[in-house]
Amino acid sequence: MIGAMGEFELIDRYFRRPAQRAALGVGDDCALLQPAPGMQLAVSTDLLVEGRHFLSTVPPQRLGHKALAVNLSDLAACGAAPLAFTLALSLPRADPEFLGPFADGLLGLADRHAIELVGGDTTAGPLTIGITVFGEVPAGQALLRSGACAGDTLWVSGAALGDARLALEAWRGRVTLAGDDFDATRRAMELPTPRVALGLALRGVATSAIDLSDGLLGDVGHVLRASGVGATLDLAALPTSAALARQDAALRRRCQLDGGDDYELLFSAPPQRALAVQAAAQAAGVGVTPIGRIDAEPGLRLREADGRVAEASARGYDHFA
Amino acid sequence: MIGAMGEFELIDRYFRRPAQRAALGVGDDCALLQPAPGMQLAVSTDLLVEGRHFLSTVPPQRLGHKALAVNLSDLAACGAAPLAFTLALSLPRADPEFLGPFADGLLGLADRHAIELVGGDTTAGPLTIGITVFGEVPAGQALLRSGACAGDTLWVSGAALGDARLALEAWRGRVTLAGDDFDATRRAMELPTPRVALGLALRGVATSAIDLSDGLLGDVGHVLRASGVGATLDLAALPTSAALARQDAALRRRCQLDGGDDYELLFSAPPQRALAVQAAAQAAGVGVTPIGRIDAEPGLRLREADGRVAEASARGYDHFA
Repeated sequence: MIGAMGEFELIDRYFRRPAQRAALGVGDDCALLQPAPGMQLAVSTDLLVEGRHFLSTVPPQRLGHKALAVNLSDLAACGAAPLAFTLALSLPRADPEFLGPFADGLLGLADRHAIELVGGDTTAGPLTIGITVFGEVPAGQALLRSGACAGDTLWVSGAALGDARLALEAWRGRVTLAGDDFDATRRAMELPTPRVALGLALRGVATSAIDLSDGLLGDVGHVLRASGVGATLDLAALPTSAALARQDAALRRRCQLDGGDDYELLFSAPPQRALAVQAAAQAAGVGVTPIGRIDAEPGLRLREADGRVAEASARGYDHFA
Repeated sequence: MIGAMGEFELIDRYFRRPAQRAALGVGDDCALLQPAPGMQLAVSTDLLVEGRHFLSTVPPQRLGHKALAVNLSDLAACGAAPLAFTLALSLPRADPEFLGPFADGLLGLADRHAIELVGGDTTAGPLTIGITVFGEVPAGQALLRSGACAGDTLWVSGAALGDARLALEAWRGRVTLAGDDFDATRRAMELPTPRVALGLALRGVATSAIDLSDGLLGDVGHVLRASGVGATLDLAALPTSAALARQDAALRRRCQLDGGDDYELLFSAPPQRALAVQAAAQAAGVGVTPIGRIDAEPGLRLREADGRVAEASARGYDHFA
């Protein structure tokens, strides 16, 4: 049945479910969504290519999880509540050993966010996963990159900034990790948790937000450019896992500043809202850490543990560099 | 500059434009769309893979056109008015010789439908184009596959059913076409016209609609299954171009029944609405042809020119068969 399984059978078997909140789900030319009155529809799209965004060694269930997680992370960064998603899947052959666990990981995460797959396209080709995700946010309340103000505190979510990159370095053979450290960082790389609840709780609290996908310096740079401000980061304040703390300083810095694939939220808020930020984080069940300050002066400065401050280049991971 | 052009620069240079109707366009974590009150949002997604959905010989401008056209065709089949789209583009390298004309073809067609690119993702990888398109349709008025009723007339748009497949056969070296025929059929394959205006004009007139992408038999089959009916097609009635009329009967039949990639609308309407169908087609500036009838009896029957009727298998092109 593997070679003979057709495209429509594949969709039916692995991905079709009854429409829930969507007016019309998988199986017609279009899906139909009905946003609630007064809501804006937030849309984000990500394309994951084997060898570029994930390794061929990733278990299919984790790949299904991650493909949706990175898109939900974009909704989180806008403070949007997830509604639905579409899947465009190119894969070399219709292999049940891949498709079963892939669908489990994908739809399992979808279920945990009460969202549904409303449409898609499958085709033979190199393994490539394109997801477009839809969320809703009250008109005018979306968290944007452009709202950071001088004097705001910069915050980051999570306790393990740079761990995903550390796992990648271990896969590449550039560093050797003890078994527990390897498992923990591998989970960070393969099973990121999109900070959806935090994004929702930060509406009306944060002045700007972005999710960390290109690396901290690059993503801070996006916010600074969009907001027309500068920033100073306290390197000693960056949340660091036990696994990463055991690495040498140069590797630690590379993982935390240039890492990418963290899928934590980086956001700004006025200092007088620090308690509101902490309350939002507590409600969302995730830790947050103040890591710096927005400056009126353009540019990005890094403050070392000893107090020295140096200019940084705000250039992150670039898929064509 | 080719190798050094980064992902963000690439988006800026080729794809970024000011937001028009979208509340927020390219450049944040999400785009924001604001559907009008009472409207449903129609969503469709298609993934095009080099070697599978298009040949490496296609001029980039035509590829840009087609990538959006096949998605607009899905909106047309739902009777939805196009609003916006996202682009997920994987390409081997940031080549201006490709990107310039590709963006021209893509955004040129977008301009003709007054829609805008609101988000996307670009990455290095095999040439793969994923587009998700958004349209709006008054709640409850979308054209579905499931509405065909016994006694309805089956119609198809356009005058050259099967020409895209004929061009593919010529590229594959299985048939030789005269220069003019080759150019005309190649245009059908590479520059399909999405029947957006026709889809809009058929709201309230057609009982069901689908766009022809998998081949006539396969797509008729989708409608019959969704509607729980059967149909009889008049083979002699299928709209046939001069180029295809010059081919032998077996090739003609293969191109018209199994062809795929036509991007015409197939729709049903009660016989008493024939004048309304013709008026809709005239308003939309495209020809339509009655090609058969919906039956209460399940199954798909083909009536030959001599009146003989035989059962057909309703299996279309399948990307994994």
